[in-house]
Amino acid sequence: MIDLRSDTVTKPDDEMRDAAAAAEVGDDVYGEDPTVNDLEARAAERVGKEAALYVPTGTMGNQIAARVHTERGQEVLADRKSHVVKYELGGLAQLAGLQVRMLDADPRGVPTPEQIDASYVAEDLHRPGTGLLCLENTHNARGGLAIEPEKIEAAADTAHDRDVPVHVDGARLFNAATALDVPVTDLTDPVDSVMFCLSKGLGAPVGSMLAGSEEFIERARRVRKLFGGGMRQAGIVAAPGLRALENVADLETDHENARLLADGLDEIGGLEVQGPETNIVLVDVSGLGLASEDVLERLGEDVRASAFGETTLRFCTHRCVSRDDVENAVELVAERLE
Amino acid sequence: MIDLRSDTVTKPDDEMRDAAAAAEVGDDVYGEDPTVNDLEARAAERVGKEAALYVPTGTMGNQIAARVHTERGQEVLADRKSHVVKYELGGLAQLAGLQVRMLDADPRGVPTPEQIDASYVAEDLHRPGTGLLCLENTHNARGGLAIEPEKIEAAADTAHDRDVPVHVDGARLFNAATALDVPVTDLTDPVDSVMFCLSKGLGAPVGSMLAGSEEFIERARRVRKLFGGGMRQAGIVAAPGLRALENVADLETDHENARLLADGLDEIGGLEVQGPETNIVLVDVSGLGLASEDVLERLGEDVRASAFGETTLRFCTHRCVSRDDVENAVELVAERLE
Amino acid sequence: MIDLRSDTVTKPDDEMRDAAAAAEVGDDVYGEDPTVNDLEARAAERVGKEAALYVPTGTMGNQIAARVHTERGQEVLADRKSHVVKYELGGLAQLAGLQVRMLDADPRGVPTPEQIDASYVAEDLHRPGTGLLCLENTHNARGGLAIEPEKIEAAADTAHDRDVPVHVDGARLFNAATALDVPVTDLTDPVDSVMFCLSKGLGAPVGSMLAGSEEFIERARRVRKLFGGGMRQAGIVAAPGLRALENVADLETDHENARLLADGLDEIGGLEVQGPETNIVLVDVSGLGLASEDVLERLGEDVRASAFGETTLRFCTHRCVSRDDVENAVELVAERLE
Amino acid sequence: MIDLRSDTVTKPDDEMRDAAAAAEVGDDVYGEDPTVNDLEARAAERVGKEAALYVPTGTMGNQIAARVHTERGQEVLADRKSHVVKYELGGLAQLAGLQVRMLDADPRGVPTPEQIDASYVAEDLHRPGTGLLCLENTHNARGGLAIEPEKIEAAADTAHDRDVPVHVDGARLFNAATALDVPVTDLTDPVDSVMFCLSKGLGAPVGSMLAGSEEFIERARRVRKLFGGGMRQAGIVAAPGLRALENVADLETDHENARLLADGLDEIGGLEVQGPETNIVLVDVSGLGLASEDVLERLGEDVRASAFGETTLRFCTHRCVSRDDVENAVELVAERLE
Repeated sequence: MIDLRSDTVTKPDDEMRDAAAAAEVGDDVYGEDPTVNDLEARAAERVGKEAALYVPTGTMGNQIAARVHTERGQEVLADRKSHVVKYELGGLAQLAGLQVRMLDADPRGVPTPEQIDASYVAEDLHRPGTGLLCLENTHNARGGLAIEPEKIEAAADTAHDRDVPVHVDGARLFNAATALDVPVTDLTDPVDSVMFCLSKGLGAPVGSMLAGSEEFIERARRVRKLFGGGMRQAGIVAAPGLRALENVADLETDHENARLLADGLDEIGGLEVQGPETNIVLVDVSGLGLASEDVLERLGEDVRASAFGETTLRFCTHRCVSRDDVENAVELVAERLE
Repeated sequence: MIDLRSDTVTKPDDEMRDAAAAAEVGDDVYGEDPTVNDLEARAAERVGKEAALYVPTGTMGNQIAARVHTERGQEVLADRKSHVVKYELGGLAQLAGLQVRMLDADPRGVPTPEQIDASYVAEDLHRPGTGLLCLENTHNARGGLAIEPEKIEAAADTAHDRDVPVHVDGARLFNAATALDVPVTDLTDPVDSVMFCLSKGLGAPVGSMLAGSEEFIERARRVRKLFGGGMRQAGIVAAPGLRALENVADLETDHENARLLADGLDEIGGLEVQGPETNIVLVDVSGLGLASEDVLERLGEDVRASAFGETTLRFCTHRCVSRDDVENAVELVAERLE
Repeated sequence: MIDLRSDTVTKPDDEMRDAAAAAEVGDDVYGEDPTVNDLEARAAERVGKEAALYVPTGTMGNQIAARVHTERGQEVLADRKSHVVKYELGGLAQLAGLQVRMLDADPRGVPTPEQIDASYVAEDLHRPGTGLLCLENTHNARGGLAIEPEKIEAAADTAHDRDVPVHVDGARLFNAATALDVPVTDLTDPVDSVMFCLSKGLGAPVGSMLAGSEEFIERARRVRKLFGGGMRQAGIVAAPGLRALENVADLETDHENARLLADGLDEIGGLEVQGPETNIVLVDVSGLGLASEDVLERLGEDVRASAFGETTLRFCTHRCVSRDDVENAVELVAERLE
Repeated sequence: MIDLRSDTVTKPDDEMRDAAAAAEVGDDVYGEDPTVNDLEARAAERVGKEAALYVPTGTMGNQIAARVHTERGQEVLADRKSHVVKYELGGLAQLAGLQVRMLDADPRGVPTPEQIDASYVAEDLHRPGTGLLCLENTHNARGGLAIEPEKIEAAADTAHDRDVPVHVDGARLFNAATALDVPVTDLTDPVDSVMFCLSKGLGAPVGSMLAGSEEFIERARRVRKLFGGGMRQAGIVAAPGLRALENVADLETDHENARLLADGLDEIGGLEVQGPETNIVLVDVSGLGLASEDVLERLGEDVRASAFGETTLRFCTHRCVSRDDVENAVELVAERLE
């Protein structure tokens, strides 16, 4: 089975497994897990922030950030297609009482300065003030777009001019830096906090990092406890996470494979491919006259993708899929859709 | 002073004051206020629902409806420019934990069947299900548009096909029926619940009505208590509310005055008027090269309107403004903006 | 029918009705209702606070206070038998996300300094900090107890030593001051905010006042809007409220009537009366071998009280019940329970 | 250092580490992690429930259970000293809008049937209905008490008679079963759901299990996602968790060590020991005339306990502390407190 549903399916390699087995651990709720502490220090350094926090999932990282940045009853600006809006079960409203002002951001999923200005709401008698701008990089639902530093900076500067903090959901942040060939700090310097996942393209089994100022992370630690994310000897999973940080260089291969996959799929009749910027390939199947689910059924178990709307499939390359796998996948898809 | 800021400024007339003074009252928390009971029965009958509830404000009526129709953690579909989204302090998120999926509805502020279908979310592991569609009639922020029965029916039918209930924020519901020259039930039959205000164009000092099925209103009564809306001898304000129901016929005059006002303002250089459908006249002042607030300052205290965005003013006619007042208002505006 | 269920059943007198009819009004959401403004100024002065806010109900006043005083995720200290805990539908949790630490306060319903110290929680990694102490005066569920200034001061000082603000639910605040024969400010000076009802013993049809510092009331005004309590020409009901402030002197009569009632009921076999301090008389009916509801049924429609637990009834005197009514009530009760 | 602060400090042994390294994994959000699935099946079987869910922490397990069992705006009955009330940051209010009715349960921390009956609230116009009874076994804050099946049954039956579901916070459930020498199902059969921790005395590095009916767990899975607990290749930490299930037999040793420790500490002047039932020893240090924190400071780094109130320490034995360690601990404590 060639599993292109998501880069979340990546399995830990032997080095990660060895790291898990050998991890020096302690009780992280007491702040005494040296492996977690090491991971948090290195993660903070990587993204150029003062401090970082290990969290079980990216969703928890995003939700913690939203709660820490805001006060009761504010608004969050976010692209309508962002993960925090679409796939987190309405957590912003449910867990923090925040109203999301959903923006139909530019095609790259970044609210323009004009949109931010127009959507910003000053607190008054009738209106909740704007409390947070949330960006996403790479932007998953728009096709793994690698958002450029200039775009992030423009949005963040506009928000900051109005004293609105900015969080980046960087579940695939290193894919963006790789694709853009910029230091990752170019993507994080303009913003106040960032979450990135160890468990996607980087290959760790579990966990994400939330980074920001020391004060922010101190408050985040408490919200993590509230949400039930304060694990004990977390070093066992933080150790593979540390190894995962070494895998950034391999993301370029995933991107090459994605381009190869895109080129191959594009030649199949009835498929229209949205040229990949990173490891995500969106394919419009409407030319086949079939719904996404029907196409997936035809593909069967040998090659798998995700339904991403009525007539769109998402294929996602990752470190557990080789160049050969990709070539085979293209052949299989062609065969099944004949 | 000619006050065109809002129809909420209408003051009760002598008949209403007499009605207040003469009201038979009781403790409405015990359900024993005959005037309130009478008002609730008549209001329900007017809008063709089984039952109704007297609430202190339209905002409370909308928020109660949202809470009663939904379960914890669902989504609400609403036009981005609707009152429940813009002017209720994020109550849907704050009071009920609901995520609003803001739609950029058609120019009349009604989500099309296509939009509803596209925005509907079935409950799954990642997504809150859609729990409510909220419409607004007349649509305030879009210029007091009187939404046609066909549009409401089309939206409601689409929602109902997916088992999503529909609430109408009908703060100015009778203005819509008047402008469209249809029975008000044509506007309410297709939906599950409706709120309308006694305190706007109808001239009552205080209060709004929430109407729906008996079961809905029974549950609404409890949420009203939670929100602190269970008043005692409310008959004192319900009595003028009963009188207000008699004022529906006068709304046509407000609409005529709005058209007169619109025609007058449109002839003033630099002003562009959005032709009124009901009692609300939106005026684009960008031709003056001035911001809304600056224009309001120039108008001074003699004629007043509301800022409705950076370069838009709202003028609102109502029963405390006569045809003469409107003519004077036009002259004053012309004079001040010369 | 002699209605002793509650002092909420008091009906407005002719003076109040005339005041309603003659009230000068404006739009209170714009702060332009002179009667409301007058009422707010006088109420603030009465209880010795900088500012006050007119709210539709005491429940809303309490809930607003809790939300304004606290931050997301704090704890509230309150007597287990207090109104805010028992009869407000869990609003502290539902509307503000606050955990109530219910105290079994001393028999007068006031947490002792020792209890406050022992229940106070400093914010740490596992625990929400204590954000509010809520007192009640008179204490309804404990029998209309008039809480002495010394007790309030002791509790408030202890809370303040820990930077915890104090709110008093003074639904029947003036009954307490009357019974204790102290200026009402002796009861409010030690605390940060106080709510009192115009609609109970003072006889107004609708409304309560929330008082505190100017900054507190400014924030309260916004939460009132969120909860749907921002009424328009509220002067119509505020005017009787102003008259109600003149009725404080009459509360002594209610208290005398309560004592008369208590003495009479106490002589009836099977009834044990808790000596009234104000206008509330609790009667233990267990000596009759009957449940509260059964006793109420026997009393029928001519004389009415409230069930207040399995074997306790509450009789409440008020301005619509005369000395003769009380004497008749005693006779009727005796007759029906023979 | 002999660390008796908590059994959460237990570190995984070599078998657990090997299990982590060798774990067969998959994406658990897709339900494809065979190790997690195996763990969930075995955990469910152990506690006699249809299904179980792996969660990052016991806190998350409890909070998920509360949310799944209840509807918006209900009350939870729980002992004032229970973990869910004291140490979960007010999550019941914050994450689910639930009001906790804190009971001063019997000395064993179990509400009696009489208390449950007296505290039960039927939903009415003023009151949130009771939606959940939450028990704790062993009861941590009361000294690791092993709650007997009869007590659980009595409480649960009373709740069930009123259609109130029952959840057990069994963070140390197997300690209770061991101490009582009963099958663990005797403790779980009477209740609807149970959470137990793998990460405490059983020695796993991370994770807890929530068990209940299939329908309950299906809904719990969704709330886990909302709270950010849906981890990916969780088999890496679930594998040591599976091993941890084999460690139940060793808990008896922890209990013996606790008794040894208790006997030793009890002979030290100024210390009064609460006889341990399981692995928790509470020690009253007031006889020393010192506060808990001061005593801890005197003990220094060589032997560590937890402050558990002003003048109480908690010592907790666990699998990383041997009989020799315990004997040394007693000597060290005696020496430092001389």
